[in-house]
Amino acid sequence: MKRSDLADKHCSIARASAQIVDSWTFIILRELFLGNRRFAGMQKKTGMSPRSLTLRLRKLEEEGILSRPAATGDKDYALTEKGHALWPALIMLKQWGDDWCHPDSDEDLPLINMHRGTGHEMRAKLVCEVCGEPVSTHTTKSILSDRFQSERGGVDAT
Amino acid sequence: MKRSDLADKHCSIARASAQIVDSWTFIILRELFLGNRRFAGMQKKTGMSPRSLTLRLRKLEEEGILSRPAATGDKDYALTEKGHALWPALIMLKQWGDDWCHPDSDEDLPLINMHRGTGHEMRAKLVCEVCGEPVSTHTTKSILSDRFQSERGGVDAT
Repeated sequence: MKRSDLADKHCSIARASAQIVDSWTFIILRELFLGNRRFAGMQKKTGMSPRSLTLRLRKLEEEGILSRPAATGDKDYALTEKGHALWPALIMLKQWGDDWCHPDSDEDLPLINMHRGTGHEMRAKLVCEVCGEPVSTHTTKSILSDRFQSERGGVDAT
Repeated sequence: MKRSDLADKHCSIARASAQIVDSWTFIILRELFLGNRRFAGMQKKTGMSPRSLTLRLRKLEEEGILSRPAATGDKDYALTEKGHALWPALIMLKQWGDDWCHPDSDEDLPLINMHRGTGHEMRAKLVCEVCGEPVSTHTTKSILSDRFQSERGGVDAT
């Protein structure tokens, strides 16, 4: 079973993963959200090879996550609406990295998000859009669709 | 530059990515959060080969994201506190997949999270832990540490 097979699954995590889950892709998204939108700038700030960067930018464009600059005219890559919508997932991954991948607590965190207009550091948490209450694994219950249940019951593809 | 080099970066996204960002790893985390905690069950529900599953479970254990069942006694893999803390990132990735990777809106979504005790579907959004206001790219401003700035200014490693 190949990674590309995940794109054909019904599961949203499988589909999302197939589109974007590659360590380097997350780094590229980081750069785009930091406003670094040109090829040369992205290459410099990430240390990626031109080939590696090109392949991932092309994939992101194919998935509709970013739009490529025209050969003439606009020179910046731009996140599409679909690309911008990845920010919450990226921020929660960053926050997890802050919390669990920086064992030396004396060291400054690499990036702080200040909450504009408030003067304090932003720390994100999840609440329910419907009722406003905090949500966690303990306060939610998963209901699987018939198709997803069937997908998870499939034969081994070893 | 190899993916493993990301683990040595200061950037939290780089460190987090190096630990967990692999499409299949997200699928394994999905299974663990769904309560599917044994090797045979995970293999059946994911369709992964034993080798592929073993490699990723070992990596997750090395990173302290899950604990492995003892040779005798407890037979279930278990998410550690660090592993449980990945839920928000996974949920936001799932929600993005629901929103952007299911173009056929007539079809049931694969998995719905019901908000326990409320009777409604949970939909997560990000708010600031400090002031309770919703947060987005537009309401936050990134401040980079000196070390992270220096890391991003590094020479190309092509």
